[in-house]
Amino acid sequence: MSIYLDHAATTPIREVALRELVDKARMLNPGGQYASGRAARRVLDDAREKVAFLLGADPAEVIFTASGTESDNIAVQGLYFASENNRVVSTPVEHSAVKDTVSQLPGAQIDLMPVDSTGHINDVSAVETPAALACCMWANNETGAVQPIAQIAQKAADSGTPVHIDAVQVVGKFPIDFHELGITTLAASAHKFGGPRGVGILLARRSPAPKAIIHGGGQERALRPGTVNVAGAAALAAALEESLAEHEVENARQARLRDELRDDIVHQIPDVVVHTQEPALPSHLHLSFPGAAGDSLIMLLDAAGVEASTGSACSQGVNRASHVLEAMGVATDTARGALRLTLGRTTTENDIRTVSEILPRIVEQARHAGLS
Amino acid sequence: MSIYLDHAATTPIREVALRELVDKARMLNPGGQYASGRAARRVLDDAREKVAFLLGADPAEVIFTASGTESDNIAVQGLYFASENNRVVSTPVEHSAVKDTVSQLPGAQIDLMPVDSTGHINDVSAVETPAALACCMWANNETGAVQPIAQIAQKAADSGTPVHIDAVQVVGKFPIDFHELGITTLAASAHKFGGPRGVGILLARRSPAPKAIIHGGGQERALRPGTVNVAGAAALAAALEESLAEHEVENARQARLRDELRDDIVHQIPDVVVHTQEPALPSHLHLSFPGAAGDSLIMLLDAAGVEASTGSACSQGVNRASHVLEAMGVATDTARGALRLTLGRTTTENDIRTVSEILPRIVEQARHAGLS
Ligand SMILES: Cc1ncc(COP(=O)(O)O)c(C=O)c1O
Ligand SMILES: Cc1ncc(COP(=O)(O)O)c(C=O)c1O
Repeated sequence: MSIYLDHAATTPIREVALRELVDKARMLNPGGQYASGRAARRVLDDAREKVAFLLGADPAEVIFTASGTESDNIAVQGLYFASENNRVVSTPVEHSAVKDTVSQLPGAQIDLMPVDSTGHINDVSAVETPAALACCMWANNETGAVQPIAQIAQKAADSGTPVHIDAVQVVGKFPIDFHELGITTLAASAHKFGGPRGVGILLARRSPAPKAIIHGGGQERALRPGTVNVAGAAALAAALEESLAEHEVENARQARLRDELRDDIVHQIPDVVVHTQEPALPSHLHLSFPGAAGDSLIMLLDAAGVEASTGSACSQGVNRASHVLEAMGVATDTARGALRLTLGRTTTENDIRTVSEILPRIVEQARHAGLS
Repeated sequence: MSIYLDHAATTPIREVALRELVDKARMLNPGGQYASGRAARRVLDDAREKVAFLLGADPAEVIFTASGTESDNIAVQGLYFASENNRVVSTPVEHSAVKDTVSQLPGAQIDLMPVDSTGHINDVSAVETPAALACCMWANNETGAVQPIAQIAQKAADSGTPVHIDAVQVVGKFPIDFHELGITTLAASAHKFGGPRGVGILLARRSPAPKAIIHGGGQERALRPGTVNVAGAAALAAALEESLAEHEVENARQARLRDELRDDIVHQIPDVVVHTQEPALPSHLHLSFPGAAGDSLIMLLDAAGVEASTGSACSQGVNRASHVLEAMGVATDTARGALRLTLGRTTTENDIRTVSEILPRIVEQARHAGLS
């Protein structure tokens, strides 16, 4: 059995979610005006109410989508096209689902809030001027850096700027109160908190409402039309409930293991750069080993039965330099030696000990092979 | 147990698909550069190859999406925005996933190919003039009318017009050869042929390629980014394989039952208008009972344990007059008395006999209640 340390990419499905998926897989069309349609609608309504309750939203504000990417796109494009303003505030450290979506907005004037060397936004003044929207991640998928969302939301409210938060790395890990945050939209993805792949959440206030970017049968407030995946929604809700129920214990456990691992690495391996700095998710440990290539580290770890990632956007094996590390001012040679280890609920003390033991040799090997 | 006659809306998941869904639910990220990532990628590649083989496409032309609606949107918007031309050819009988998408295209000049009183396109000359795209359903979701797709594809090829076919009602019911058809894109939805809800297919040639409308991590040829739903893709492929393996027997069986039902109804009930006319899907029987309200028919049938639909777009209980029947020139009073009975693989001889028996009384009741 491998040691899986890529929970930030995706985390194994929870048994409770799998059970819901199977239990509800035979559900038919929740739009049907008959007994089986009403039964499906009831399951869907229950899932919606559970999610709303858990995230501090109204049920009517919960839109089931197919992924975090889709939620981000509906919100970012939708709020932009709903506005007369063409200014968009964002950050240089967004996930590609927001970054590439923002950069494709026709006619947009994009203002990025800068980040410091720890990856935290250190100047939110861009939201003090009205914009079509401000969009920002709550926590970074590479470093785990937690951003000053409340402050951004507050200032954006003052300037009348709608705010979209990409909470894909946060939902399920921390309690969220959508209304209290005072933001306009929020994106989450089930497979990041033990739900099935292929289901996402968009929380969206009634006003300002995003303009629909996908058109069809009017389902999900016409923001996400198409026959609804009832079993997926039920499984998502079950996973969210369980993950929030255990979040305190689990976060403390992961933080302890993560800190142990970090300290072990820093003590054992020369020239380590630790990118994950507080405030950060307890699951994340992003580091660089200058002189080693991230790809080599991943391959050598894989050969040793440890599954990890470089952390940078890499969908089909294409490894680009991380735009996140670049925005943090990390030197290119250092950025290329990046390794992201992300813990999850299946991570054990033993896993961490094994990684501590084998990593020094692996970094040495990778450094020996050089950056070629 | 109810008698389910709304298979065109959604059909129960096949056991083989549910088994795949459960069996592959623990699969992790197919983008991961390690053992479990490779395992997920292998399952995804297998699903893609199976779908490609079954539909006469190359694996690289198979894009997994989350629904038929999404596939239609990616193709229609994507081909439009990829073109310099602003002319769009379509029909007045499209599903809302195409109809509403076409009508929202900014700056589009829309030419609709007319249909006759049986709902079949009877003039395809609009595709003889170059356009950004021609988009048309293969079979109509309300009436089941099968359109002259090959003829449209041929004429469009002559004029250099890309063609998108909404094959959501056809895939799984008839063999399809994407390459032989010579079309550009094709949409399908798993839950229409016994796959899970929340998974769709877009077949898309390399050229002309749709312009992406959703942005993110680059998955699925960057046309449908986001962590891929591997289990959903595997379940879709299994459902497609089984449905195509049994399609001949199943189509013949359904056509026989459907014809029996139609003849029984026509003989027993006065003033019936049969909207489903050949060439049509064997699953469909769309009728009108002038003087009755479709909603009343549905409610009375539901009370008698029969699940059916009026056939017209009705996502959350909002019943509009059918744009399909209107395009066929059906009088409003007749259109309002529409009833769509759609058969599927779980439909039995007994189901049909029961419906034949109870329908006369129900139509009488509904007519008595009138159109109020
Ligand atoms: C012809 C047609 N196109 C598109 C769709 C949309 O499919 P989905 O509900 O999977 O998004 C449907 C389903 O009702 C349909 O019948
Ligand atoms: C911060 C962030 N946003 C968006 C996404 C996209 O989520 P999904 O893969 O479910 O589309 C991810 C997942 O990698 C993420 O980490």
